Amino acid sequence: MNLTHTIASRFDDPIDRRGTHSSKWDKMEQLFGVSAEDGLAMWTADSDYASAPCVIEAVRQAADLGVFGYSWEHLAYRDAIQWWMKNRHGWDIDTNWILTSQGLGNAIALCLDVWTAPGDGVVIFPPVYHEFAHKINKSGRKVLECPLVRDGDTYALDLDDAQNRLTGSEKMLFWCSPQNPSGRIWTADELRAVAEFARRNDLMLVSDEIHHDLIYRGHTFVPMDVAAPEIRDRLVMLTAPSKTFNIAGQRTGNIIIPDDGLRAAMANRLNTLDYAPGSLGVQMITAAYSPEGAEWVDAQMEYLDGNRQLFDATIADIPGLWSMPLQATYLAWVDFSGTGMSYDDITARVRNDARIAASPGPGFGTGGEMHMRFNLATQRARVQEACERLRTAFADLQ
Amino acid sequence: MNLTHTIASRFDDPIDRRGTHSSKWDKMEQLFGVSAEDGLAMWTADSDYASAPCVIEAVRQAADLGVFGYSWEHLAYRDAIQWWMKNRHGWDIDTNWILTSQGLGNAIALCLDVWTAPGDGVVIFPPVYHEFAHKINKSGRKVLECPLVRDGDTYALDLDDAQNRLTGSEKMLFWCSPQNPSGRIWTADELRAVAEFARRNDLMLVSDEIHHDLIYRGHTFVPMDVAAPEIRDRLVMLTAPSKTFNIAGQRTGNIIIPDDGLRAAMANRLNTLDYAPGSLGVQMITAAYSPEGAEWVDAQMEYLDGNRQLFDATIADIPGLWSMPLQATYLAWVDFSGTGMSYDDITARVRNDARIAASPGPGFGTGGEMHMRFNLATQRARVQEACERLRTAFADLQ
Ligand SMILES: Cc1ncc(COP(=O)(O)O)c(C=O)c1O
Ligand SMILES: Cc1ncc(COP(=O)(O)O)c(C=O)c1O
Repeated sequence: MNLTHTIASRFDDPIDRRGTHSSKWDKMEQLFGVSAEDGLAMWTADSDYASAPCVIEAVRQAADLGVFGYSWEHLAYRDAIQWWMKNRHGWDIDTNWILTSQGLGNAIALCLDVWTAPGDGVVIFPPVYHEFAHKINKSGRKVLECPLVRDGDTYALDLDDAQNRLTGSEKMLFWCSPQNPSGRIWTADELRAVAEFARRNDLMLVSDEIHHDLIYRGHTFVPMDVAAPEIRDRLVMLTAPSKTFNIAGQRTGNIIIPDDGLRAAMANRLNTLDYAPGSLGVQMITAAYSPEGAEWVDAQMEYLDGNRQLFDATIADIPGLWSMPLQATYLAWVDFSGTGMSYDDITARVRNDARIAASPGPGFGTGGEMHMRFNLATQRARVQEACERLRTAFADLQ
Repeated sequence: MNLTHTIASRFDDPIDRRGTHSSKWDKMEQLFGVSAEDGLAMWTADSDYASAPCVIEAVRQAADLGVFGYSWEHLAYRDAIQWWMKNRHGWDIDTNWILTSQGLGNAIALCLDVWTAPGDGVVIFPPVYHEFAHKINKSGRKVLECPLVRDGDTYALDLDDAQNRLTGSEKMLFWCSPQNPSGRIWTADELRAVAEFARRNDLMLVSDEIHHDLIYRGHTFVPMDVAAPEIRDRLVMLTAPSKTFNIAGQRTGNIIIPDDGLRAAMANRLNTLDYAPGSLGVQMITAAYSPEGAEWVDAQMEYLDGNRQLFDATIADIPGLWSMPLQATYLAWVDFSGTGMSYDDITARVRNDARIAASPGPGFGTGGEMHMRFNLATQRARVQEACERLRTAFADLQ
């Protein structure tokens, strides 16, 4: 019996998440006007297939015990995180660098809270994860966009341009690596350039690496702390198993801070707010960050590779549509500008004709115009269905 | 088949929590020097028996689906909370009064954060839940103790004394109802007096009612908002299913605020911090706050009543020891002052001789001297064992 094959075949298991209180499925009608009856939910970044067997088993064991009392961030949990970072990312961390937050959205908000004040500027490189700008704005800080530039079939940084945009009020930089929505993996040289940019401009560097495990074969991911340990005095690393293992609902992520002083400031804030992770989240992560978990992630990436090839081939077939080749993540970034249509027209075709709820590109900031992001972390049959629907919706372009 | 009997008999199921990352069991050696090998953990307020079957079933169903993606505080969750408050507590709430926090420790910290500033005073009535003072202190606010007074075999309020203690810098009052550690249920008249005290002195009133479901037969609990709705413009109600259903590890509790303006302030803080409850917590609570859950809670209270009678009879038998009759909670409050021993001697006997980890009374503030709190939410056999050990440890007093 081929174990990898057995694991992989589960990704195809038909799972209907409608009515399971999945935001992606149960809110799509309200938010996108796409009926759950025959709509396809391809927006929010979670997966439609089941998590790794070892994670599910941890939940079952908790149910078998039946006691859900007080727990804590015990050593097995910290050891598992340390093991994972070392084995999957070549990153040596000390277990006491690890702080646990209520997911990375919360971690981003806490970074703003601890190290910036209302009115301070925060640098982002759009198009990028829409919540960066949203959280900066809602906390009364100011977004400074330093747009990525299209360079061949991917994005590149323009740090000279970024330097010119700085106003002097910036205190922090939110970095997304691998990049959402482009699926770009940054090279060690690029990471060092960003680190140097942060150092030169006295910015705290928050490196959101939530997608770090979703790397396609042939590509190598480098954590910021590995590429540029010299800026540890301003570095906050954010990681989480939520995308990797499809456990975002547990809202458990890590703020990993090598520098003692910075870590003490964040630990103090978490302590004052009396934050402590849920026991099931801790148990699931402890189980996930294991050899069995790693094997499942490898199988997942093979599966996602098939999804992305199928999707990209379809998009390439539709004149005027173009999808950026993914190096990482299950989020396909599609450029509709070649159609010459308005964004409203495109939206209408995707939502009303194809009955697909995809994430609107403009939400990702400058550079997101005329784009949509499609979540491919679903059963192959659904990707296939989405492809057929898009083909039909844009058939007149053939 | 008698269903209640079937449910109740599960409380006796021998469950060994050692090695399950239970703080109560796995940290007792480190914190109390009581070896897990044969020690009895009777401190932290969670239970050693399994949660309600409907709660466990919700966890199993989540495991069966295997997908742990994004969820939200959906209507079924809010409806369940509303149903529970109405049916169990005669309390009518609007579903949009409900905000969800990361448990009540977090909620207490958030109340301090939102409505007080460093240096402000916060009124508490000790002996009371030790974390009130701890959280007030660690957030840089000031504790103002207004001690309860012994009145017959329970505690009473002395609000005239409290009035004299106020310094003018107090902004908030933390109220614990039913009271931890005494197990006291406050009457509607007492609640109205406290509400009036808060109004007169312009204090925000935070009513922590986490133990509200653990009411012994013959006693009636009244929520503060039912007793004194006239002070809604300064009232924050805190409730949680964590003690009731033994799911404290999920760290999900509710901040229920009838007043629109106050609620908006807390909602804004939660939103800025990007807090959202974990999906399993939401699922467990939705399942818990149901007719099946209610039936289980009734059975639990019968069981706890047996535990408390056994324990109280033993304590009454040991000269110099006295336990306050519990009206609510599974936390027995034992006064050792009649022994004439020093607190160190008592601690040594309880920890070293009886090998019991109990919560030290002095931690609960003024009035806690010479007391210890014993958690009776465990299998009857363990209560029995604790009784025998205490009897032996204090045998020379017979
Ligand atoms: C880059 C990035 N950071 C953070 C998050 C959100 O993380 P969490 O679910 O832990 O709040 C996402 C989710 O899509 C993301 O893409
Ligand atoms: C009165 C009181 N409030 C709050 C808590 C803690 O609640 P949580 O576990 O939700 O933080 C406790 C736990 O013992 C308690 O007794």
